[in-house]
Amino acid sequence: MPSRRELANAIRALSMDAVQRAKSGHPGAPMGMADIAEVLWNDFLRHNPGNPQWCNRDRFVLSNGHGSMLQYALLHLTGYGLTIGDLQQFRQLHSKTPGHPEFGYTLGVETTTGPLGQGLANSVGMAIAEKVLGAQFNRPGHAIVDHYTYVFLGDGCLMEGISHEACSLAGTLGLGKLIAVYDDNGISIDGKVAGWFTDDTPGRFEAYGWHVIREIDGHDAEAVKAAFEQARSVADRPTLICAKTIIGFGAPNVCGTHGVHGAPLGDDEIRATREFLDWPHPPFHIPEAIYAGWDAHESGARWEREWDEIFADYKRAHPELARTFERRIRGDLPGSWQSLARELVQQADEQRRTVATRKASQMALNGFGQHLPELIGGSADLTESNNTWWDDCTAVSRQDGDGNYIYYGVREFGMSAIVNGIALHGGFVPYAGTFLVFSDYARNAVRMAALMKIRSIFVYTHDSIGLGEDGPTHQPIEHLATLRLIPNISLWRPCDAVETVVAWQAALERRTGPTCLSLSRQNLPHQPREPGQLEQIRRGGYVLRDAGPEPQAIIIATGSEVALAVDAQERLAAEGYRVRVVSMPSVDTFLAQNVAYRESVLPSAITARLAIEAAVPDSWLRFVGPQGRILGLSAFGESAPGPDVYQQFGLTVDQAIETVRNLL
Amino acid sequence: MPSRRELANAIRALSMDAVQRAKSGHPGAPMGMADIAEVLWNDFLRHNPGNPQWCNRDRFVLSNGHGSMLQYALLHLTGYGLTIGDLQQFRQLHSKTPGHPEFGYTLGVETTTGPLGQGLANSVGMAIAEKVLGAQFNRPGHAIVDHYTYVFLGDGCLMEGISHEACSLAGTLGLGKLIAVYDDNGISIDGKVAGWFTDDTPGRFEAYGWHVIREIDGHDAEAVKAAFEQARSVADRPTLICAKTIIGFGAPNVCGTHGVHGAPLGDDEIRATREFLDWPHPPFHIPEAIYAGWDAHESGARWEREWDEIFADYKRAHPELARTFERRIRGDLPGSWQSLARELVQQADEQRRTVATRKASQMALNGFGQHLPELIGGSADLTESNNTWWDDCTAVSRQDGDGNYIYYGVREFGMSAIVNGIALHGGFVPYAGTFLVFSDYARNAVRMAALMKIRSIFVYTHDSIGLGEDGPTHQPIEHLATLRLIPNISLWRPCDAVETVVAWQAALERRTGPTCLSLSRQNLPHQPREPGQLEQIRRGGYVLRDAGPEPQAIIIATGSEVALAVDAQERLAAEGYRVRVVSMPSVDTFLAQNVAYRESVLPSAITARLAIEAAVPDSWLRFVGPQGRILGLSAFGESAPGPDVYQQFGLTVDQAIETVRNLL
Repeated sequence: MPSRRELANAIRALSMDAVQRAKSGHPGAPMGMADIAEVLWNDFLRHNPGNPQWCNRDRFVLSNGHGSMLQYALLHLTGYGLTIGDLQQFRQLHSKTPGHPEFGYTLGVETTTGPLGQGLANSVGMAIAEKVLGAQFNRPGHAIVDHYTYVFLGDGCLMEGISHEACSLAGTLGLGKLIAVYDDNGISIDGKVAGWFTDDTPGRFEAYGWHVIREIDGHDAEAVKAAFEQARSVADRPTLICAKTIIGFGAPNVCGTHGVHGAPLGDDEIRATREFLDWPHPPFHIPEAIYAGWDAHESGARWEREWDEIFADYKRAHPELARTFERRIRGDLPGSWQSLARELVQQADEQRRTVATRKASQMALNGFGQHLPELIGGSADLTESNNTWWDDCTAVSRQDGDGNYIYYGVREFGMSAIVNGIALHGGFVPYAGTFLVFSDYARNAVRMAALMKIRSIFVYTHDSIGLGEDGPTHQPIEHLATLRLIPNISLWRPCDAVETVVAWQAALERRTGPTCLSLSRQNLPHQPREPGQLEQIRRGGYVLRDAGPEPQAIIIATGSEVALAVDAQERLAAEGYRVRVVSMPSVDTFLAQNVAYRESVLPSAITARLAIEAAVPDSWLRFVGPQGRILGLSAFGESAPGPDVYQQFGLTVDQAIETVRNLL
Repeated sequence: MPSRRELANAIRALSMDAVQRAKSGHPGAPMGMADIAEVLWNDFLRHNPGNPQWCNRDRFVLSNGHGSMLQYALLHLTGYGLTIGDLQQFRQLHSKTPGHPEFGYTLGVETTTGPLGQGLANSVGMAIAEKVLGAQFNRPGHAIVDHYTYVFLGDGCLMEGISHEACSLAGTLGLGKLIAVYDDNGISIDGKVAGWFTDDTPGRFEAYGWHVIREIDGHDAEAVKAAFEQARSVADRPTLICAKTIIGFGAPNVCGTHGVHGAPLGDDEIRATREFLDWPHPPFHIPEAIYAGWDAHESGARWEREWDEIFADYKRAHPELARTFERRIRGDLPGSWQSLARELVQQADEQRRTVATRKASQMALNGFGQHLPELIGGSADLTESNNTWWDDCTAVSRQDGDGNYIYYGVREFGMSAIVNGIALHGGFVPYAGTFLVFSDYARNAVRMAALMKIRSIFVYTHDSIGLGEDGPTHQPIEHLATLRLIPNISLWRPCDAVETVVAWQAALERRTGPTCLSLSRQNLPHQPREPGQLEQIRRGGYVLRDAGPEPQAIIIATGSEVALAVDAQERLAAEGYRVRVVSMPSVDTFLAQNVAYRESVLPSAITARLAIEAAVPDSWLRFVGPQGRILGLSAFGESAPGPDVYQQFGLTVDQAIETVRNLL
């Protein structure tokens, strides 16, 4: 029977050898955290390598994602079907072992990490999801949702601001099943952290209301075990275990220095490490006894079986709830979905309301929400501005997880990464709001949602200079164009209540990535449509108004500028010009349509084209071509009432008309 | 003689009346913080309304910038030439009183605030600047740099992650002349913060090593005064004064609620407030006695005169230092600047080195740096990767401010906003590095630098999929294109060491906004150039290679893809194709050239165009036109050695050649 240290050394050996073979990577963190990981995975973590998707598994997140070999070694040793061959392909093209852990590439990786602090925030999201899902579904005697979320993190994660946002909220919400382990090795890339990071981290986390276990020896398995036990005994607060470790533990000449952080050890040091650790086995060879000590197939299968029995009982007692639970875990929308969506579109069309699209978004939430218990909303302290709260919202609180709304506070980045964590956990479709301009604060979390292909929905209101008096700090200029440039984001900027319902429908149906909804502060008039046009909205761009069979010019517009385009078109029609108005609420969706459809909306022959959007013009170059014109703005906005700002930047019907006339 | 409360009430009245007149704005914070502001400005703040630029003034930052009327009222009352007429134009087009305080619009506003937490980080930058400038210039008996930085902040600032990053570093650096006042009113936009913000804030700041003054009554002038005195008595740590206040103090029916945060009080409540405060004066009327109590002209002039004498003494004792100080405060580069720059360009051209542009950047810093004591560098824990440290660098530490390099730790957003604060303070040209992809974390600070038109320099290395193994979380894809879309940013992506020197020259010379330098991780070959071409680099785009007088096609490329373009051109030339290669390190700079120059580089007649950049293609649509082609990538990257990733995405010489052939 191998000792705990020997089990841990398997991680160390695999990590240093894989990094060496790849000639790049980070051996320091895996070697430093190996003992902690060994205790967690062998004594506490409830997971099933035979079914990485088992919904009640404990979640494990490596927030210091550069230590990816730690996670790959764990997945290999416990039996996730990550082979030695895969480890030998560490950091090679199309391998299952990329440089940082990537959700979707490697079974058992719960989230993509590397951008520091975000894994921690994701794990807060997972713990929120566990708490809320449990409160929604568990019934006396039937705890079908009951798991821990464990997260490893380093100094870098703790320096990042997002750690403050996420952990402050975790403290407020009392997430007792979140257990974080701080790899306190005193080293970051620039060297000894004492020169730039002198926080009393335990004090800081106590200030957040966390349960903190101070200064345990991260290489003493018994101390680590006792810490996890203590952490699990505290149910009303998250726990931070502060573990003193030696980075690169086992490498006798470089451990404890930043030299071991992010570079291969080199052949000599690897030899010395083998000797120091008394690990005589050749690279990528793990003795059978060690494998046996790690193998989690049997225990995993047993845990899942036990849960299956609990769930079978639950299903008998609460068949309706169980069905909903299963549907939500699958991520499917309700069976009635399509007819519901059709009905809501119809209804918005009939109501013909002039409302801000942020208000229309709330109306859509009211329509969809009552059929979607999986919705979990929130806002970064702008609830009444973002209109993210709808009639059946109940706030999640420390005391009561049975809600569907989170007051995130002024924490845009933390919120967005928490939203990603909730989406990754499963059982929910999360959405969260802030002003469009403050998508900047959360930008990398939005990108991570796109990279992970998860269904996070970001509600961005106050989406142009039309917000008025708050001025240039609050007026988005470049944000529409720049969000459109992040791969795999779908962005909708609806022009009225009808398009807003369709935008929400698209966001909710999208299983392959996040959606950003760009919504106006100001009222926008209803646009009348034929049934065929109603159908076409979902194609992202369509002919909203035409003037005769042979238009001379096309105006393309989005959101709040569509009404302006329509007004211009009407006045131009009165002058005898035949102008088509194309509403294009979602550029990416339109570009994904077939050529024939796109050509029908924007016939190549019509080169007199004007695009109007109160934003940098660059999204529209591809549509208007070299002969076309764009009404937009390339400068920062101004503080003044919205209509004055539009006037100031020439976003007017008169200007549109004159531009079209000049084109013709 | 008016009482302190009466003086403070002038702020309250002006704030509520201006918001009411504008029909929008935030009366709550100005009314809640009026008593604190009165004590600070009348008893402590050393400033001179007669010369808002006086270099040794205390800095005042309103990080909760939505309370802008507080600052406008203070500037009006103390004599900054902001008139009652200006206050009546609050939030109107082109007024000096925009919705949020804007640097450059309003004399006396030290930084633009509104995006929460950033004013706080700016003030950390200002305090760092004071500390370092003092250490560099002060001599025994001559303290020419000696001022405080005061910052007001609210719950929102404290929830934002950037507050963690900036305040943690401020604690580490022991910024004793930074005094922050927390407006602890228990209210944010969504209501009582107790539901989402339960930090023990004093405990948190003590964990950062701050001096914390707990729970004073923010409406008790004597308590406030005592707190400021105590704060100023502690020299080795920054101070946080936690002041309990009532939001909207004075509005008897709505104070203490979120209703007063961000909306006009309404006529009835304003009437009730006048009564409650015993303020009988009509809107926008301030009695002379009140003005007299506020007027800071005389004291301000006296303080500046006293400083003038100290500086005159200093100048006699240290004439050389004094000249450098004056030059640095003016923000001018040294007189030898142009010849120095020419020489360094020449030298790089002669050395013909194949190096990564991140390394070339360090070489440029070594060349420029020894002549530029105003440079103050740093990195977010990537010093050796960003190559931001050069030979004469000395780290600023808690003990010793006499340095020119800051180890920012893993705090990209805090770092960037601190850089802005240093630039705003004056006396420095700050630069700071991280990986290009993590510009995401700092994005709104970069935007704020652009909005404020300040000389912040952001060094972004590892600027493409060429970074290789770290994979998609670390590989920028959309970042070049999206940074280019922020108004007033200049971005340079040099292709070799020569262009890198010119990029640095441009960044250092630019007085009207920030510059982003996009630099490669991998080696790039030297490109030979004629003297005329060396001159043209600064125009942002130029003909690097030509093939005869009448090119058939043009390849445009930037940075690491220029060598690829040149290779393709050479092979195409061997096949008899006449292809021009245009290197375009700075799109914005090229677009700012006159039409004739642009036409000479990219003749309209040549429509066979290919652009190559290892990034989303969208920057190049305007240059290649509808007949052109772009080699780029619209998907996230892959973890693999850099050359393999280039291959994978078709960024190869073969692909370039084939594309040009197809164009012709």
